[in-house]
Amino acid sequence: MQGERHVRIIGIDPGLRRTGWGVIETDGVRLVYVSSGVITSTAGEALAYRLRELFEGLSGIIASSQAGEAAVEETFVNDNPRATLKLGQARGIALLAPAMRGLSIAEYAPNLIKKAVVGTGHAEKRQIQAMIGFLLPKARFESADEADALAIAICHASHRGAAALARRVAREGV
Amino acid sequence: MQGERHVRIIGIDPGLRRTGWGVIETDGVRLVYVSSGVITSTAGEALAYRLRELFEGLSGIIASSQAGEAAVEETFVNDNPRATLKLGQARGIALLAPAMRGLSIAEYAPNLIKKAVVGTGHAEKRQIQAMIGFLLPKARFESADEADALAIAICHASHRGAAALARRVAREGV
Repeated sequence: MQGERHVRIIGIDPGLRRTGWGVIETDGVRLVYVSSGVITSTAGEALAYRLRELFEGLSGIIASSQAGEAAVEETFVNDNPRATLKLGQARGIALLAPAMRGLSIAEYAPNLIKKAVVGTGHAEKRQIQAMIGFLLPKARFESADEADALAIAICHASHRGAAALARRVAREGV
Repeated sequence: MQGERHVRIIGIDPGLRRTGWGVIETDGVRLVYVSSGVITSTAGEALAYRLRELFEGLSGIIASSQAGEAAVEETFVNDNPRATLKLGQARGIALLAPAMRGLSIAEYAPNLIKKAVVGTGHAEKRQIQAMIGFLLPKARFESADEADALAIAICHASHRGAAALARRVAREGV
């Protein structure tokens, strides 16, 4: 796919140990798999330097993938504030990296992502992965983190048209 | 204070709306106030771009202050995962900014910071501020966020000697 109306979307599934990412291209209707992977940080390294590993890895991928829009999962660990704080730190990096390159950035709740991909907000991981295989037949992913990141990108592809229309209506009143 | 054994420490009290920072200089015994302030992010702006404001503000201050070490408060909001996630995101930025400049970065729990400054882990805000005025007579701060950031820097100044010794003992076995 080429042309002005085509956009590359990077989906990001943040995590301190493993941050999944997946890039797709869309013309507003069709979806094409571009690339995906996982950025890991070194266990035992100081937290701040693990965050730097994530930031530098993600920044490099955003630059080389030529993504124009980013989507990040919004989640927290309900019963464990320490785990939620840790996730929040990785998530701050996942938001900062595309912001430093000027991308537009959307956030989606987990059940909205599942609904966009599988049709229900309570899908299992294997259902999501099967549906990604159907929607992106060229996709090659080896881990659940990559699959989740591609699901986030797909969710954004299906919502960005409606969101852009809502912004135009708000701005132009038409 | 000048010389090789003098170091500037930046204390950081992370928050999405307001991130306090305070720089002090120490020769291992004396403490001297250098500067302090608050970085704010624009309410209503997208989260990722608010994090970018914090990152760019903090990066500029770290560069101009010539800080060699950083200390960041470690805290979470126990009963509100949404607030903890938000704080975690700001905290990720507060850790990343000094890591991108290669500073050594320490983290301290709130009660340890209070104990280092006031002598007890359960001090009130006004006790902390009074003690900062005593320890850093030249300090000029207008907000609790700045005072907290200076308290974090003071805490690090009092712990860094012991921490460096512990590292040397672990390395050299002496």
